[in-house]
Amino acid sequence: MENKLKLVKGFSWLGKNIGIKDDSLDFGVLFSEVPCSATGVFTKNNLPGAPVIVGKEHLENQELQAIVVNSKNANVATRHSLEDARNMCVWVGENLGIAPTMVLPSSTGVIGQPLPIQKIQKACNTLQEELESSVENLQHFITSMMTTDTYPKWHSRTIGEVTITGVAKGAGMIEPNMATMLSYIMTDAVLPKEKMKSLLTRVVNQSFNRISIDTDTSTSDTVVFMANGLAGSVDEQEFEQALLEICIHLAKEIVRDGEGATKLIELTVEGAESADQALKTAKAMINSPLVKTAIYGADPNWGRMIMAIGKVFEYPVSLEDIQISFGKNDKSLILHSTVEYDPTLFAKISECLQEKEVFLTVVVGKGEYSETVWGCDLTEEYVKVNAYYTT
Amino acid sequence: MENKLKLVKGFSWLGKNIGIKDDSLDFGVLFSEVPCSATGVFTKNNLPGAPVIVGKEHLENQELQAIVVNSKNANVATRHSLEDARNMCVWVGENLGIAPTMVLPSSTGVIGQPLPIQKIQKACNTLQEELESSVENLQHFITSMMTTDTYPKWHSRTIGEVTITGVAKGAGMIEPNMATMLSYIMTDAVLPKEKMKSLLTRVVNQSFNRISIDTDTSTSDTVVFMANGLAGSVDEQEFEQALLEICIHLAKEIVRDGEGATKLIELTVEGAESADQALKTAKAMINSPLVKTAIYGADPNWGRMIMAIGKVFEYPVSLEDIQISFGKNDKSLILHSTVEYDPTLFAKISECLQEKEVFLTVVVGKGEYSETVWGCDLTEEYVKVNAYYTT
Repeated sequence: MENKLKLVKGFSWLGKNIGIKDDSLDFGVLFSEVPCSATGVFTKNNLPGAPVIVGKEHLENQELQAIVVNSKNANVATRHSLEDARNMCVWVGENLGIAPTMVLPSSTGVIGQPLPIQKIQKACNTLQEELESSVENLQHFITSMMTTDTYPKWHSRTIGEVTITGVAKGAGMIEPNMATMLSYIMTDAVLPKEKMKSLLTRVVNQSFNRISIDTDTSTSDTVVFMANGLAGSVDEQEFEQALLEICIHLAKEIVRDGEGATKLIELTVEGAESADQALKTAKAMINSPLVKTAIYGADPNWGRMIMAIGKVFEYPVSLEDIQISFGKNDKSLILHSTVEYDPTLFAKISECLQEKEVFLTVVVGKGEYSETVWGCDLTEEYVKVNAYYTT
Repeated sequence: MENKLKLVKGFSWLGKNIGIKDDSLDFGVLFSEVPCSATGVFTKNNLPGAPVIVGKEHLENQELQAIVVNSKNANVATRHSLEDARNMCVWVGENLGIAPTMVLPSSTGVIGQPLPIQKIQKACNTLQEELESSVENLQHFITSMMTTDTYPKWHSRTIGEVTITGVAKGAGMIEPNMATMLSYIMTDAVLPKEKMKSLLTRVVNQSFNRISIDTDTSTSDTVVFMANGLAGSVDEQEFEQALLEICIHLAKEIVRDGEGATKLIELTVEGAESADQALKTAKAMINSPLVKTAIYGADPNWGRMIMAIGKVFEYPVSLEDIQISFGKNDKSLILHSTVEYDPTLFAKISECLQEKEVFLTVVVGKGEYSETVWGCDLTEEYVKVNAYYTT
């Protein structure tokens, strides 16, 4: 799929290095020349980071005009976290001539260490000169959000005059209920403020809430959706479909670039008695370290998949009903408990598991419900990345 | 602690190679010359292995006289699994002159592949000659249960004339609710049949149900407890205490030898409002891939611990209440959100995390409840072991 990064009317960006940890881009600002209707979805973690607390406050009236973000430090659980997050909004507001409540702060990176706040204060003095409505600046902005990401992530769609561009960072701590992820979705469409929250919630549930890298739940997860109305109105259904495509694209990109991941896994559970059963079973499988390592090794260890299906204690299943097929369109690679053991079949499945994108379809019964989730394999590199992250 | 393997009156054992996969010991039998009172605790997985199904049936009348076990193949989810498990009991019964229902079958190893049942049938022809009440044979028996274990696991206690010896295998797929583990506990004490089940359940809840290697739940987990009464009666309280010590010892050994593990983690959660909160929080932490990799890297990444505490959604906590201390007796290594960042303190904690046994105490509030769990770190070796297990 073509993935051209598109500018959105009235928005400008900057991304620069301010030396938070090393010399990579670590500070970014996103600005709309007019106030936006806005809404957000945040981590469910009971101990959210200070930026999440402040961001929720600033979104209460559903208006926003700027986002300030730093990487390399998540500004969580330190003595000055909350004060620092509030100050970031004050400084950005002062420089751009807007109220601090029109600014949403984000910080991502190591948690539990103090933010070098003087560096951030200084960086806020020159925003007006540095903001630009250019692809280069937008790319710098996206890059400034990255932590263990290995490449920047974006997706754009147009509907007539309207543009929607979503950007994201991800990588680790991606649990099906959001992730160590930040995503900002900008549009120049006119959108009714009162519908934005439910629209975003529906779309996030079908995209960012369907992905998993590990089973951890970050304290910083944030999706913000801003509409400045400069390109006029748009068909709501068409818009929702485009938004969903953008979010699924970004969600899959986050998983594909999961820490140490070598493979994207798309897993569909079918034949469930309820959506909840389908989703819980899919999550049990996509989160199982033993299933994830087997897929990494291209090992057709279907017994581990059986194990994972069986550990969803609240939904008993029968072995006779279970069928696992491998590959996107190849309907010949199917395992079932009554099939005689066939080494040739296992060898073919192993080949299929060597692809960069692995497709699994699991039938768990005769019900009508199905759900699709995305995840990645578990590798030595995941361990390496995470064993030595702060040091 | 001294760990001498002790024989139990009336019990004999054998362990041998029958070529299920390679030339390591892979087949064992445990036999009591008189019938035993017996009980068992099994996996909660909804798709248990055939040996678990048959074992539960045979324990219905709470009597048992022998156990037959093979490693390298778990006899799960294949077309002939159930028939094979039943036949193993028939053949052992025939050779030893006891009813098949007095035999409990166990199989451990890869799941989803057919058992080489002819080899097992042949192996059952010579049990009487091979069974011996010797330390050597008991060691062979324990070794024959091993899969990815790197050493055999046992613990013995005596109370007057009475001996209790527990043996176990573990290694991967160890979730807090039991594990890819097999454990058999033999005693020559006289025990009232009707009390054995509740006694075993209490003890397992404080030991095998408090450990975690990964979050997976094996289809084969089995703990069997057999008492043949040949050494007379025993003080019940003293016996329960000894049994608990044996099971905690074996549980910790299983975690210490977790796949790829380099460290044993003992984690206590204190100050919880309920036992459930304490246990759920402890499990969230001990199962978190990000906490486990940080401990592997001796990285004092306390923010990840905060993250794991916060992801127990049903029990909100306040950051101000949380305190994490490191080390068994050293009360100086404490992290709290109001403490100024101190690199020297972090360096000392990192040293403490380099030990083979890591002790963590986490205060989550002002409640009265506490729980202790055991786990291990997550390493590149875990991934290697599990990526290429069947192939």
